[in-house]
Amino acid sequence: MSRVTDSAARRAERAWLEATFDRLWPLPRSLTGDGVRRTHDILAETMPLARLEVASGTRAFDWTVPDEWRVRAAYVVGPDGTRVVDHADSNLHLLGYSTAFRGRLTRAELDRHLYSLPDRPDAVPYATSYYSPRWGFCLTQRRRDALPEGEYEVVVDTETFRGSMTLSDCLLPGASGREVLLSTYTCHPSLANNELSGPLVAAALYARLAAWPTRRLGYRFVLGPETIGALAYLSLHGEHLVAHVDAGLVLTCLGDRAPLTYKRSRQGDALGDRAARVALPAFGGTRWRDFSPLGSDERQYSSPGFALPVGSLMRSAYGTYPEYHTSDDDKAFISFERLQESVDACEAWCRAVDIGGASYRSLAPYGEPQLGRRGLYPDLTVGASNVGAQEAIFWVLNFADGEHDLLAVHERSGIALGELHAAAARCVGAGLIEAA
Amino acid sequence: MSRVTDSAARRAERAWLEATFDRLWPLPRSLTGDGVRRTHDILAETMPLARLEVASGTRAFDWTVPDEWRVRAAYVVGPDGTRVVDHADSNLHLLGYSTAFRGRLTRAELDRHLYSLPDRPDAVPYATSYYSPRWGFCLTQRRRDALPEGEYEVVVDTETFRGSMTLSDCLLPGASGREVLLSTYTCHPSLANNELSGPLVAAALYARLAAWPTRRLGYRFVLGPETIGALAYLSLHGEHLVAHVDAGLVLTCLGDRAPLTYKRSRQGDALGDRAARVALPAFGGTRWRDFSPLGSDERQYSSPGFALPVGSLMRSAYGTYPEYHTSDDDKAFISFERLQESVDACEAWCRAVDIGGASYRSLAPYGEPQLGRRGLYPDLTVGASNVGAQEAIFWVLNFADGEHDLLAVHERSGIALGELHAAAARCVGAGLIEAA
Amino acid sequence: MSRVTDSAARRAERAWLEATFDRLWPLPRSLTGDGVRRTHDILAETMPLARLEVASGTRAFDWTVPDEWRVRAAYVVGPDGTRVVDHADSNLHLLGYSTAFRGRLTRAELDRHLYSLPDRPDAVPYATSYYSPRWGFCLTQRRRDALPEGEYEVVVDTETFRGSMTLSDCLLPGASGREVLLSTYTCHPSLANNELSGPLVAAALYARLAAWPTRRLGYRFVLGPETIGALAYLSLHGEHLVAHVDAGLVLTCLGDRAPLTYKRSRQGDALGDRAARVALPAFGGTRWRDFSPLGSDERQYSSPGFALPVGSLMRSAYGTYPEYHTSDDDKAFISFERLQESVDACEAWCRAVDIGGASYRSLAPYGEPQLGRRGLYPDLTVGASNVGAQEAIFWVLNFADGEHDLLAVHERSGIALGELHAAAARCVGAGLIEAA
Repeated sequence: MSRVTDSAARRAERAWLEATFDRLWPLPRSLTGDGVRRTHDILAETMPLARLEVASGTRAFDWTVPDEWRVRAAYVVGPDGTRVVDHADSNLHLLGYSTAFRGRLTRAELDRHLYSLPDRPDAVPYATSYYSPRWGFCLTQRRRDALPEGEYEVVVDTETFRGSMTLSDCLLPGASGREVLLSTYTCHPSLANNELSGPLVAAALYARLAAWPTRRLGYRFVLGPETIGALAYLSLHGEHLVAHVDAGLVLTCLGDRAPLTYKRSRQGDALGDRAARVALPAFGGTRWRDFSPLGSDERQYSSPGFALPVGSLMRSAYGTYPEYHTSDDDKAFISFERLQESVDACEAWCRAVDIGGASYRSLAPYGEPQLGRRGLYPDLTVGASNVGAQEAIFWVLNFADGEHDLLAVHERSGIALGELHAAAARCVGAGLIEAA
Repeated sequence: MSRVTDSAARRAERAWLEATFDRLWPLPRSLTGDGVRRTHDILAETMPLARLEVASGTRAFDWTVPDEWRVRAAYVVGPDGTRVVDHADSNLHLLGYSTAFRGRLTRAELDRHLYSLPDRPDAVPYATSYYSPRWGFCLTQRRRDALPEGEYEVVVDTETFRGSMTLSDCLLPGASGREVLLSTYTCHPSLANNELSGPLVAAALYARLAAWPTRRLGYRFVLGPETIGALAYLSLHGEHLVAHVDAGLVLTCLGDRAPLTYKRSRQGDALGDRAARVALPAFGGTRWRDFSPLGSDERQYSSPGFALPVGSLMRSAYGTYPEYHTSDDDKAFISFERLQESVDACEAWCRAVDIGGASYRSLAPYGEPQLGRRGLYPDLTVGASNVGAQEAIFWVLNFADGEHDLLAVHERSGIALGELHAAAARCVGAGLIEAA
Repeated sequence: MSRVTDSAARRAERAWLEATFDRLWPLPRSLTGDGVRRTHDILAETMPLARLEVASGTRAFDWTVPDEWRVRAAYVVGPDGTRVVDHADSNLHLLGYSTAFRGRLTRAELDRHLYSLPDRPDAVPYATSYYSPRWGFCLTQRRRDALPEGEYEVVVDTETFRGSMTLSDCLLPGASGREVLLSTYTCHPSLANNELSGPLVAAALYARLAAWPTRRLGYRFVLGPETIGALAYLSLHGEHLVAHVDAGLVLTCLGDRAPLTYKRSRQGDALGDRAARVALPAFGGTRWRDFSPLGSDERQYSSPGFALPVGSLMRSAYGTYPEYHTSDDDKAFISFERLQESVDACEAWCRAVDIGGASYRSLAPYGEPQLGRRGLYPDLTVGASNVGAQEAIFWVLNFADGEHDLLAVHERSGIALGELHAAAARCVGAGLIEAA
């Protein structure tokens, strides 16, 4: 299977990541709306996303898909007639899902609608109020503190209406009919690590996996808003996922400069967790987290009714770095070299899942097959010349019992997964084993 | 659930423990007899014990309930006419279940009926011969060595007759119909740690548990003679116990000054063992013992035909301290402060079993329920403000799968059991989960 | 059960080992032939081997039993008329299964048929070409390097013909009908550690086990050529072995001076593996290897279609010592003291399997049986006199649940296996338990 090791191809991929980042950055993303749609359009240039528009008011288990939200303009004019804060400058300035408002307020009245971070006085916080009607503006603490007394003009020219919420998916098919779930989210406006990194890695990963000559597993990519998007997707396709998914990852926070963090699935030792142990240490300093039901959409996939074996791959986990959910999570905060390394890590994990999760059944299970006459073993032995010969083949044959996958054989033998995979291919070719 | 933390209540409980100790101390307890009955009468003032009188000759599996034994008087008069040893001075002076005898013996003839401890020359041993007819007297080695030659008059005015053996039980009911077995024994005469401590702790514990506002589990207290009492109880109620008991403790040796000792059940990792790991370390220096089929009545409850998950709580285990089964195991040897701390430890263990053994089933298992509209989650998020919010609720909801009890959730999450219990109560109140 | 501890008996056994070694050493063993038959004849003087002659051409799963091979003479005459190398000097000089050849060759032509070891220039390698027709001679590198130019006369007077391959087995019966498989091989010519040690240990072990007063298990000894012999035996008796074998060992490389090596079964924690943990440490410095599907005939017994729980006992494992498969693996390389200690280790392992694998079922499982009236427990207790009494009996009774074998009881209690066995015998005698 291919790896992007050719440096021209790597450079092209890296350039694509940065150019696409720049196109996606300014779009006004939220749970719903045209900013999300344009985001999916751009990603669909790289991966054949199928669009799912889920109507406002649709039930998704305990939840209801919200109305669509549209922002025409949103700003505050100060006593001196200049604009104090303006959504046109940054999506972050407007509280997500702000209700419409127009009026003149005193400094004190306005202040009840302002959000800032006392501990990080130069950053604009990212704030939302999806399910309780409010309006508000986000700004730096320094700017807020400097606002003079006087009358302020507030314009929040937004509307919510019966529209739809945008999800997309695509499936890169595999030979076995079993699937890997790769999920990320597209609801964060103008934030780099959390979250443009996830969709960018997903799209680049798609291109890599599409180039593999064979795939045992299918790879299902799901993009939508966090929480309600995953819930809506589960309400549409949850039964299919439960029946088909062998492993999964939520992709998030993959662009910062820290080493990787792998968060285990609820099962803790599922295929994806075992694959991570094999695939990720090569990237250096990988950190391991046990599952917890707090976090991103693994919460939904791992809810007790589904209990899908879904982990999460990150660099710095959400909430653990000070730039999280502020205007400081910007292009300068992330590294495109690290972002590309995250694609490498995802591909390595997919490869470990794809070849490592394969089990075989021997077609000659009684004793060893005679390898010599098949050209798989020396036909002459002199002294210790045959000691250890064809070690990988013997391991694959002995554990071709339908119960041990190649990861299990790797765990017992210490032989590299790729070597076991090559040995299995030779044994399949010789008619000695078949996929279980 | 209540804890006796109020110092007036604690003082009252401690005073009760000491006063009841003083009343129970002189009663002539043995496998059977009026001393046992009066002991149960006194304990029944505190706990509503139901009396079970099992007739002599009743079969209990491989055993037979012995005849009742009564002591009218028992003493030895020396050559100088003074009483050398007298049951009236201490129950310990007479070998338990001594047969009747009257006669005049030489010093040498008498000596074959005397028991003392060469290694502990100032202590009177506790000795019994329940199932082989003998008579004998126990005295200090020093007194024995000083007995002059001459003729001794021996009076053992005892009788055995077809009577009955006294057991008692009571059940403090719980909501689930499942039970906890708490067993202790009432056959030891005039010994403090082993064994007035067990019945005293059991009675005080009963009063504490009765004051709990709710109980998931029922608490079954069983009091009777060691071994034959447990066997008789099992022969009457063994099937019920096998069908209903989730955890159990044998209470013994709970008054000395050493730290607690928890002896694990035969299963080793049953509910009670897991609860002990959570509840007991707070008491400082707790020692842990694996199950062994030697010891007290856990031997009977854990016999292969029943295999009940019964552990044992002690301070210094029987046989490990030099005062064991001698007249030195007296009121001075024990501490009523420690005895009361043993009640605390038992209550803490019961609480960990009661709330920690509860499993829940989600009524909204597909994805997360929407906590925000139920007031269980912030409806506004600013920056990292919601990171980690309502952690206990998310853990409880995710593991409300009917398979994980709260102890398991505690083990995975590290969240205190009480906090998980409170979160579960809120989720039950919100109609999100139900008891599994 | 007996141990050869009597020094006269030990001396006799050691003398037998050495005398038999000397008789077996010169025989021309290979996969087939009269050298093998004479080897089995000699071993049959000690153990009642049943001969199995498997006809050439017989299928054994993926393999076919080869033609029989006979060597009449094989030598090379040099330019000066002296014999450069002669099978009459050592079986090792002729490549195993060499095809017939007669001719005159140049030095260079001859060299393509010579085998030697550049890294071990004074040793003759052991070489075979069982399944590809070739002829060749083995000699020291030093001799080969000194061969002058000139014409060489080569005589390989061998034949292959439709004959048979020789296997033998015998079963020392046991009370339960369950079996232990003890397998070794007889195809190596004039090599001491690998492999005359295995057959010699097997025969001496047979004599020891035959002298045991009772055996719970039957002991099945299998001797034949490596690989094809085990395969042929499995094709004849594999179903029986799967149905009856509880534990097994391949015996090989048991004569050198290194400490023991135990290679675990494919299961890793089967009866034989657990018995090894108890039996082998006493021999000092025992080394432990996990199963791998490379090695000796455990590869066949542990193939996925059979998956028999067969480990291997060795001193220095094949391939790990420089003398392996060379003329340096000779009588001087091995120690008869060590060889006899290997017999001791095998017997200790068999004993641990035999008594440790026994499970019992209580005939009085409800509560404890009353040991006192059976004379198994003190009927009088004074102070702590009964603490710890009859510990082994209590452990055996409590775990007589049909699920715990005595090894499991040993693992939990720490009580020596022999002591538990004696306690079990007393309990069986008292009618309290029976074999499960």
